[in-house]
Formats: sequence, C-alpha cells, structure tokens
Amino acid sequence: MAEYSSILLEKAVDELSKLPGIGKKTALRLALHLLGEEKIKTEQLCKSLNDMRNNIVLCRRCYNISDEPLCSICSNPKRDENILCVVADMRDVLAIERTCSFNGLYHVLGGIINPIEGISPNDLRINELLERTKREEITEIILALPATIEGDTTNYYLSRVLKDFNGTITTIAKGISVGDALEYADEVTLGRSIANRIPYNKG
Amino acid sequence: MAEYSSILLEKAVDELSKLPGIGKKTALRLALHLLGEEKIKTEQLCKSLNDMRNNIVLCRRCYNISDEPLCSICSNPKRDENILCVVADMRDVLAIERTCSFNGLYHVLGGIINPIEGISPNDLRINELLERTKREEITEIILALPATIEGDTTNYYLSRVLKDFNGTITTIAKGISVGDALEYADEVTLGRSIANRIPYNKG
Repeated sequence: MAEYSSILLEKAVDELSKLPGIGKKTALRLALHLLGEEKIKTEQLCKSLNDMRNNIVLCRRCYNISDEPLCSICSNPKRDENILCVVADMRDVLAIERTCSFNGLYHVLGGIINPIEGISPNDLRINELLERTKREEITEIILALPATIEGDTTNYYLSRVLKDFNGTITTIAKGISVGDALEYADEVTLGRSIANRIPYNKG
Repeated sequence: MAEYSSILLEKAVDELSKLPGIGKKTALRLALHLLGEEKIKTEQLCKSLNDMRNNIVLCRRCYNISDEPLCSICSNPKRDENILCVVADMRDVLAIERTCSFNGLYHVLGGIINPIEGISPNDLRINELLERTKREEITEIILALPATIEGDTTNYYLSRVLKDFNGTITTIAKGISVGDALEYADEVTLGRSIANRIPYNKG
C-alpha cells in the first residue's frame, strides 16, 4: 500500500522532496498546503516555474541569467561599461546589486577553481572574459570572488591570465564586517584588515 | 528595475515564497536549483503538483484524501470495519498508519473545536460520524484527537453527541513517551500517566 493512501500525493511529495533542503516532512506540508488552497494557486505556481525554466537564458555578454539575449544590466545605457566586476555566480550579482554601490558591468564565471570538486579553469568562462577585455573598452577589472582559498586561487589564476590587460585589476576589500566588535572577528580577517588599512578619510 | 534582472525569475520566486515556511531566500535557492537542472525536472515537478491538486478527492466514507471515491483503507477488505478511529486531520491518519498498530477504519473530522480560531462543531464532520454509527456496524469508537485543551473539549463534545451509541468509546492513552526519563516529563503528563496506570502485564 502507498505510504499516503494516495498515489498522487505520494508522487507530489516525492517530487517536492527532490528540491534542496526539502525533506519528506516539509514536502508533505507543502503538498497539503496546496491541497487546501484553490486549484488556481497550484496552477499559477507551476506556470511561473515552467515559464522561468523554459524561457530564461544566459546573457550573451556577461552570462548573468536574463529574459532577453542581452540582460537588463548589460543593456542599460546608464551603466559604466569601463568597469567590469568578475563574480563566481549570478547570486553574487544579486548581492552586489542590492548594495547599490556598483554601477559597472558584470562577468559571471560560473564558479571558481576547485580541484576537489573537479572544477578546473576550463569549466569557467575565463576565455570569454579575455575576449571581453580585448573587444570592450575596459579600464578596471574588479575581482569579487569568495574570500576562500579557492577564491584566492582563482584570483591568482585570473591575474596571471590577464597579464596583458592594460587597465587596473582590483579585488574587493577583506576586513571586519561593519557593526562587528573586534574581539569576535577571526584572527585572519582581523590580521588582513590591519595589513590592508586605509587612510582614515576614505573609511 | 526588477530585483533579479529577470522578471521570470522574480515571478517564480514570488510564487514559491507564498508556500508556508518558504522565505524569499529559500525560494531563490529553489528557483536557481531548478534553473540548473534539466527542463524535464521542472515539468515533472509541476505535473505531479497539478495532477495531485486536480485529481485528489476526499473519501466519501471516512473523508481521508484519496485518489478514488472510496479510499484505499475503506476499500481494503482486510481492515476491521467494526472499529472506528476518529482523528482531526488526514496527517493523523498517516501518523497512526505508520505505527502499524491499528487495523480498523478512520473518520477524519477536519479539525477540532476551537472557539479562538472560530471552529465550531458545525464546521466538523460530526453529523457524518453520527450517520456512520447508525449505518455501519461499529462496536468501538477510538477518539484519537490531539492531547490539548481543544482536543479534550472535542472529546467531551463527541462523547455527549454519541450518547446513543451502543458500542464502546475509548480514547488513546496519554502518558510519558517511550524512551523518556521521568524527570524530564511535564507534571501534567506524568500525573496523568500515574492516574491512568495499567496492570503491569499489559505494558
């Protein structure tokens, strides 16, 4: 006998629990929630998921996800085309956009070099980045990769690959978080934030 | 500008975050997960949700959810039709079925009496329960409602309504959980488990 007295419910719970972070219990709660709502709610949810999956593409310029061949950032004439921010993932684009502190363009690598997970430079959009530095008028490349060993490795690799690039290469500042007390910052971060100290006025 | 550089993604995140316990961040993670998978995965998920929502019905006898007019428990000839277990919700049916300790039939009330949430006896399937006691050959009714004040209230109400019922009315035992140390059990539970002590052999 089926676990749930309904094969249809069991199938829905199975499919929902394939999603990351959704176990069987959560999946059952979600399925029962949908059963308690109007049919149109389930239809709307499914339509939005299918629409998204079938119609979203990668921007042909920066490889951010986009509804159009050229994403809304790349096609925005108000953005500064001379500054390129290199990120690992489209989530990082969202994070930086939320800061409202950056007005240039992005380049989404699609990951960072990680030998343990089998991600080599060839799996990333590094050639596409080189092409852009030749084709576009870029004066500064900001490396905004995760502050991990893999991120540092990728930064180093990129700096070697970009040795013929004529502009400036910068990387985002690492230091203690705004609002943090010094005593709770880890030693490496606090050490770096002392080593990379900046003139007081800029802070 | 859209928060996510993609209206389609934003729409999907909006719909996902309407689900209970799913916030914007989780919804975004789920949406990006689907984007990273084959299109067929999203289609399968949505098909199973729509199939479930459009085709599941309530069993006409016990009001458990079911794929057929009569659910797989009610239509199973091996179940004991003389014992009826009254539960608040179909989740409780699942919970009791998992114990493999009950071989009778169910009656799903659809809730319990809760004046604060505005649930009165008329909102529950109590008349349907009375009808079953007249129409079916039931010798025992087990009240398996939540061990809360509302559950106790509903138990009391049902015992009054069922005063003409000729069989036995029982309720599930309340006591300390199997595996629990006495010192961590709350006073009410421990008190009840002493008051309702049973002969040693049955334990």
